[in-house]
Amino acid sequence: MRYSLQAGGKRLRPVLVLAAAELNGRPAFDPRAAAVAVECIHTYSLIHDDLPCMDNDDLRRGRPTAHKQFDEATALLAGDALLTFAFQILTDAYIGNAELASALVRELAHAAGSERLIGGQMEDLQAEKCAHPTADQLEFIHLNKTAAMIEVSLVMGGLCGRMRPGPELDSLRRLGRELGIAFQIVDDILDATSDTATLGKTVGKDAKADKTTFVKLYGIDGARRYAEQHTAIALDVLDKLAGDTAFLHQLVATMLERRK
Amino acid sequence: MRYSLQAGGKRLRPVLVLAAAELNGRPAFDPRAAAVAVECIHTYSLIHDDLPCMDNDDLRRGRPTAHKQFDEATALLAGDALLTFAFQILTDAYIGNAELASALVRELAHAAGSERLIGGQMEDLQAEKCAHPTADQLEFIHLNKTAAMIEVSLVMGGLCGRMRPGPELDSLRRLGRELGIAFQIVDDILDATSDTATLGKTVGKDAKADKTTFVKLYGIDGARRYAEQHTAIALDVLDKLAGDTAFLHQLVATMLERRK
Repeated sequence: MRYSLQAGGKRLRPVLVLAAAELNGRPAFDPRAAAVAVECIHTYSLIHDDLPCMDNDDLRRGRPTAHKQFDEATALLAGDALLTFAFQILTDAYIGNAELASALVRELAHAAGSERLIGGQMEDLQAEKCAHPTADQLEFIHLNKTAAMIEVSLVMGGLCGRMRPGPELDSLRRLGRELGIAFQIVDDILDATSDTATLGKTVGKDAKADKTTFVKLYGIDGARRYAEQHTAIALDVLDKLAGDTAFLHQLVATMLERRK
Repeated sequence: MRYSLQAGGKRLRPVLVLAAAELNGRPAFDPRAAAVAVECIHTYSLIHDDLPCMDNDDLRRGRPTAHKQFDEATALLAGDALLTFAFQILTDAYIGNAELASALVRELAHAAGSERLIGGQMEDLQAEKCAHPTADQLEFIHLNKTAAMIEVSLVMGGLCGRMRPGPELDSLRRLGRELGIAFQIVDDILDATSDTATLGKTVGKDAKADKTTFVKLYGIDGARRYAEQHTAIALDVLDKLAGDTAFLHQLVATMLERRK
């Protein structure tokens, strides 16, 4: 659990939790436990995704994947334990505020569940067996496999900042959706154009597996334009939000230009 | 998810949730969602435990295991999704009572987490590599791998019956602990003495793997006496509880005599 969680990575999702929580100044509730919970879920999903029966990857965040460093059973259980720990930490940390704890668990379980994160992964596996996956299928995969966890990071931050269900949280969700799709397209572009040392994970996998990605469907330039469009919508949604959006604005813009 | 969840089994854990909830008459909160959540966690743990990198089992609840019926990736994701769904169903079903939802999530996450259920499974894996595992190690494994989920079933039922932290919940936890250990010893005895058709899962695995069990340490008769002792303590704890304990009394006694 520690090995994979402490390997680093961009920590984009926990940063989004903190940034959303601080939109309206000092947050009502300390968002750090929520940020850690989100990163636990993200890390578990990477550990399981890297297993031999899934993507069978050797390298992640610049280190051997968990099953390479230890063994498959340990990696499987570490993933299970990180997933479970996310819900433990939320209910432990926010024990004095059951409304918040319960709302955070609910959002996170839905985002990480069979209709979003896991649904996207399942569809991703099935698309690999498809002769001609469609753009719709690809959109479904990215919306759920990638965007769901980015949406929920912002929403959980908003909840720590005492946002109530309504237009403000809806905007954060929309922002996360657009950022998430842009993020995944950039990931696909980097897989096609970057190198393993820079990314800290194996590149060129998509082309090797003849996987349907935005790059395969629209080419590098076309994919790039899609990423720019989704980023522009994200920034537009963000700029209409109340509060100090400067940090998030810069973060969203940076994600389009990232090299890793 | 449905394939494994609907395969049946004894459904002991959800029955314990319902029985504990009804100790003091009609429960304050409908315990059925809590019962389903517990069974989701139990079923996920069986799916992952049966995977090739773990126990590599072909048969469970009288059917092919999930990875045999589908494939390893599907079984992995179905397990992940059932684990996540447990927390989703608790926060969806008890959305009107955040205190209860949060307490149930907290209990369940702790019981299923790295210090209990998963800790027990990890220790179980490591004990297999040990030349001479001790009785203490075996006790640790059973207490966490098996008893934790039986304890939490009773506690979650108690919470639905509006029990507060204190002697009553402590007694339910103690009852679950003793019942859980007795249950695991009977499991070990059945693995050594029953047949695959009756149990619906492969028998003789422990002896084949030269696994340390109560049967290996104390023989069938010695193990049987241990199971009887733990059952006697469980019944003693139960009989001191307020409320109508008749059903639970019979259930605990029956578990000692079960043939599957």
